[in-house]
Amino acid sequence: MTRTVSNAGPRLSVLTNPRAERVKAVRALGRRSARQRAERFVVDGPQGVREVLRFAPGSVTDLYVDDAALQRHRDLVDVARDANLPVHQCSSAVMAALVDTQHPQGIVAVCRPVDVPVADALADDSGFVVILAHVRDPGNAGTVIRSADAAGARAVLLSDASVDLYNPKVVRSTAGSLWHLPIALGGEVAGLIAACREHGRRVLAADGAGATLLPEADLSGPHAWLMGNEAWGLDEATRDLADDVVRVPIHGHAESLNLALAATVCMYASADRSAVHPTS
Amino acid sequence: MTRTVSNAGPRLSVLTNPRAERVKAVRALGRRSARQRAERFVVDGPQGVREVLRFAPGSVTDLYVDDAALQRHRDLVDVARDANLPVHQCSSAVMAALVDTQHPQGIVAVCRPVDVPVADALADDSGFVVILAHVRDPGNAGTVIRSADAAGARAVLLSDASVDLYNPKVVRSTAGSLWHLPIALGGEVAGLIAACREHGRRVLAADGAGATLLPEADLSGPHAWLMGNEAWGLDEATRDLADDVVRVPIHGHAESLNLALAATVCMYASADRSAVHPTS
Repeated sequence: MTRTVSNAGPRLSVLTNPRAERVKAVRALGRRSARQRAERFVVDGPQGVREVLRFAPGSVTDLYVDDAALQRHRDLVDVARDANLPVHQCSSAVMAALVDTQHPQGIVAVCRPVDVPVADALADDSGFVVILAHVRDPGNAGTVIRSADAAGARAVLLSDASVDLYNPKVVRSTAGSLWHLPIALGGEVAGLIAACREHGRRVLAADGAGATLLPEADLSGPHAWLMGNEAWGLDEATRDLADDVVRVPIHGHAESLNLALAATVCMYASADRSAVHPTS
Repeated sequence: MTRTVSNAGPRLSVLTNPRAERVKAVRALGRRSARQRAERFVVDGPQGVREVLRFAPGSVTDLYVDDAALQRHRDLVDVARDANLPVHQCSSAVMAALVDTQHPQGIVAVCRPVDVPVADALADDSGFVVILAHVRDPGNAGTVIRSADAAGARAVLLSDASVDLYNPKVVRSTAGSLWHLPIALGGEVAGLIAACREHGRRVLAADGAGATLLPEADLSGPHAWLMGNEAWGLDEATRDLADDVVRVPIHGHAESLNLALAATVCMYASADRSAVHPTS
C-alpha cells in the first residue's frame, strides 16, 4: 500500500506495507546471491549514506527514510533530492523490514557496485596499494579498507575466496572508506601479485614468518602490501611470490597482532617513509 | 554430585552437577560485582589458560576441564598438576554452566587479579606506557592491551570509569597479554597523568584535534600515550593536562581511525623511534 502525503518539501510516497515486493527485494540484498543477481547492495545508516552521496551519488538508485530520519537527516534527504534520486518515505515497520539490523538507523540507500577493474585500480602507480588475500571476516576486511584510506593507500585489491565487499558488515566497517579509494575485486592472489608487478610495484608480504623487520623494509618505491587470512596468514607458496616477506616486530610477549592492526602498522610505515603527505 | 575416577594420571574428582554451588560461584564471576566480592575472575579457553600458567601460575586457584579438553590440552593439565593446582574434571553440562560463552572451549581457570599499584607499573621509567582514559568497549580495551604488549609498552594504566579489566571479553581480547606487562587500575585520569609525570614521563594525548602530527612528535624520551574513549575521545580539559596533543595523520578521506588502530600506530611509532629492540 502506498499513499501520498504533502509536506514542506516535494510530495513523497509513503511505504507502509512491510510485505511489499519492493521491500522484500531490498531485504533480500542481505544475501550475496541476491546482491549479485540484482547488482545492487544496501548502505545502512547516516554515515554510509552521507559518504556515498558525497563520493558516488551516481551509484545510488533509491533512498529510504523513516519519519524520524527525515527530520534528523534532512541534509542528506535534500542532497538526494537535489540529485534527483528517488526518496521513499517509510513507516518504521517498513524500515525494520528493509534491513536485518539490530538497531535500524532509519536511513538506507540502495546502490550499484563501485568496484573497478584491477588495471584501473592500479592506474596510479605511486605510493602503495593493499592486496587482501582470502580475508574472510567482514569486520576485518572493512577495517583494513578504512585504515588503507586513512594511511593513503592508492587502492585495495580483494582476492577471490574473500568476504563479499558488499556484505552489510563490510560496508558498515569501512565507515565510508568504501567510496574513498578504488577497490578491485576477485581474481587469484597470484594474478593480483603479477598485476601489481606489471604496474611497477614491489610486492611485500606481511607475515610473522618474514625475515625482514618492518623498520628495515624498503618502502621507498611504489609497492603493494599483501595481507593474508586472519587465521592462517599467507601460505608458503604465496609468500614465495612476493619480493620480500616483512614482519611487524613483536617487542613484548604477544604472539602476534591481529590482521587489521598489523595491516595498519605496515601501511602507516609506508605513509611515513614514502612521500605521502596528509590531507588533514 | 562428585564421583572419583581413576585414569592414567592422578585420581580426579569429576563434577557432574551443573547446579552445584561451586559451579554457580564460577558462573557468577561473569558479573563485575561478584568478581570484586570474590577477588577472582575467569579465564576461558586454552590460549588464556596457557598464558596465565606460563606467566602467573601463582594467580590460578582452580582449573576446570571437560573430557575433550583433558585429551586435547594434556600439556596444560600437566603444567597445572606439576604446580599443584587443583584440576577439576567436569561433564560437558558443568562446563556449559561454568561460563557464559557461545562456544565453550572446555578449559577454564579461576584466577586472582594481577593488576599492580600505579607506582609499581611506573617503576620501569624507560620507553613508553599507555593510559586508557574511560575506555568502555571490552574488545577495544583488550585489543589495546594486546598491541601495547606487542609494541613493547612498559605498562598499561586503566582509569576509573573504564571497562573492568577482568570482564571476560576484555580477558579474551588481550589474547594472553593481560599477563605479559604490568597493568594498573583505577584512579582519575588527572592522577594517572600526574603520576606519569612524577616518574619522568612526558604525556602525549592522542587525539584528532592535536596540533602535532605523529611523525613530528618527540618520542625520544620516556613518555606516556593518553588514549581517550572510543566514541568521544578526550575532552579539552584532559587534553590540556598533556604535554603535547598528537594526531595520527589522515592521508585519504577517512574521518578517523578507531581507537585500537590509532593507539597501535602511535605505540609502534614509539617503538620504532625509541631504542626498543624486538624480542622476536
